[in-house]
Amino acid sequence: MTPPNSTTQDPAAPHAVTHVPPGARSTIALLQRELERRWPGGLPNVDGVSRYALLPTGKLLRPLLVVESACAVGGTAEDVVAAALGLEYLHVGSLIHDDVIDGDATRRGRPTVAARYGTPEAIVAGDALIIGTFVAVTEHAGPGLSAERQLAVVHALSRAGVDLCRGEAMEAELCGDLGCGMDRYLEMIALKTGALFRGACRTGVLLGGGTPEQEHAVVEFAEHLGLAFQMSDDLLPHTSDGAASGKSPLSDVANGRPTFPVLMGHRLAGPAGRRRLEAALRGDTPAAEAHETVREVLESTGALEAAAERARSEAALAEACLSALPPSRSRDVLADVARGSVDRDR
Amino acid sequence: MTPPNSTTQDPAAPHAVTHVPPGARSTIALLQRELERRWPGGLPNVDGVSRYALLPTGKLLRPLLVVESACAVGGTAEDVVAAALGLEYLHVGSLIHDDVIDGDATRRGRPTVAARYGTPEAIVAGDALIIGTFVAVTEHAGPGLSAERQLAVVHALSRAGVDLCRGEAMEAELCGDLGCGMDRYLEMIALKTGALFRGACRTGVLLGGGTPEQEHAVVEFAEHLGLAFQMSDDLLPHTSDGAASGKSPLSDVANGRPTFPVLMGHRLAGPAGRRRLEAALRGDTPAAEAHETVREVLESTGALEAAAERARSEAALAEACLSALPPSRSRDVLADVARGSVDRDR
Repeated sequence: MTPPNSTTQDPAAPHAVTHVPPGARSTIALLQRELERRWPGGLPNVDGVSRYALLPTGKLLRPLLVVESACAVGGTAEDVVAAALGLEYLHVGSLIHDDVIDGDATRRGRPTVAARYGTPEAIVAGDALIIGTFVAVTEHAGPGLSAERQLAVVHALSRAGVDLCRGEAMEAELCGDLGCGMDRYLEMIALKTGALFRGACRTGVLLGGGTPEQEHAVVEFAEHLGLAFQMSDDLLPHTSDGAASGKSPLSDVANGRPTFPVLMGHRLAGPAGRRRLEAALRGDTPAAEAHETVREVLESTGALEAAAERARSEAALAEACLSALPPSRSRDVLADVARGSVDRDR
Repeated sequence: MTPPNSTTQDPAAPHAVTHVPPGARSTIALLQRELERRWPGGLPNVDGVSRYALLPTGKLLRPLLVVESACAVGGTAEDVVAAALGLEYLHVGSLIHDDVIDGDATRRGRPTVAARYGTPEAIVAGDALIIGTFVAVTEHAGPGLSAERQLAVVHALSRAGVDLCRGEAMEAELCGDLGCGMDRYLEMIALKTGALFRGACRTGVLLGGGTPEQEHAVVEFAEHLGLAFQMSDDLLPHTSDGAASGKSPLSDVANGRPTFPVLMGHRLAGPAGRRRLEAALRGDTPAAEAHETVREVLESTGALEAAAERARSEAALAEACLSALPPSRSRDVLADVARGSVDRDR
């Protein structure tokens, strides 16, 4: 059966549609309707390219966080939907550029923007979407939205966007360097993944009229969620379900990326295991052999279980932060998102 | 003698320092001091790359427009300097991406960011600067700056940024197409060049506390200035001083770009001349021959004089818009900028 929130043209992205908590379906439907309305077919030029990148949608996780954070503190989905879409523009714009940088030809089972339209078009469309974030967050002032709060959103989101760039640059720096250690990795994913999660949740609370205490709690929720989400994402290629989601178990190793389970293996291994992992990530050994080394060391050290346990613990910490909010459907959705972040195939 | 506003490390950019009206020197000095203070040497990661792109500076024309527009309507340079630098970030971020797209290895006599640091680093640094625009315009609220006006600035600047992207995409579409005609060209440069000029001037008037009438007048000034500036920029490779500014007379032709003088030649030429120009721009003839064809047709039709005349007329229209402002040093600077836009080598 097709879930009600699925987009029919995107059959190759199973985890993109199984990850939505049932309570979030109306929000996801609203976000998809609004995206379709704002980016209709037949747009010329860079707007047509942007539509291709936005629709059919991915999980819409970041805009969902905006809407549910807003609703959880007393706001309405309608008041914040434009800003919520702004988060999606920032995320998708940055993914378009990521794919140019990595030379990737497919995303979510379709040709990337660069593969479909060309690199120049992808760079310009990514720019337009990134800048479009700030058109979106300032375009709609609902009756309850003060200019001060909208301005605070622009400030928070632009800082989050710069942090995202810093995280991307840091990820490139860490490539091939297993000696960077877990702390640098955690710093990197707090920027690369955590920044937009924090920006999304802060946006929701600010526009929803939340208190500073609620803002603090929801941003802390987002921090733990970001960690849980990225740790879990790094684990995906190593799990039996990973292949179904389109993740190649080889690509991170081949790219020399020190991912969470590999760093965990490095921490848990003895000196010989460490040296083998380091050589594999530096590209000193053929790809198939490197992959086999990584698999062996992760298995013998119990790194996969340790990494999954840490991800679950971050998700639990995220959920615990939500006790600062009054009970509501939206709070339940946020809790479901936290639990779903470490259990992608529910 | 070195002009007081020059940056000592950038000897290869003569037109970058001869173009500053004498009355603007204190503003330019303020902008350069603030850039140095905000982007000190030794910054790590993407911030270090951004510094390389920002310093030594170019003409700082867009931030100058922000400051002088603000001061012309009663604001202060100190209150708007952060937002003014935001315009420079947007401009420079987009230039970094332009250079990636065009594969250019030098800009203002130095290696481009892509040539110096690599394409991935250039894409990410461009993103960080573009997003940093919105950090900058929201970071500083002077005593006279209302949140409503700052929000209006964010909206205007983000729309200008998206228009810039549309202009870039449109420019790519028009490549090799002389039949696009003058109207499409004017539409394209109003987006590609005009958008940030309008955004800069609107930002200044909004933050300087100007009236809606003043905003209207200064935005109209910016529109004509943008046309004059780009028309003149297109003419530069065809003038004797062009070589000194680092513009190759061949590159536009080689890239198939329908520039202002070439479109003027196409309009003024007979059917045979038109066919020759079209073939040259399509790349049907060897580069040297194409260049010679363009030179001949432009000379025989008087296109260069006609194009220069139109640019001067736009500059005069820009200057005329300033009569809506009270007399001031800043108004004089804006007038000087308009005159200087068509007379780059004063």
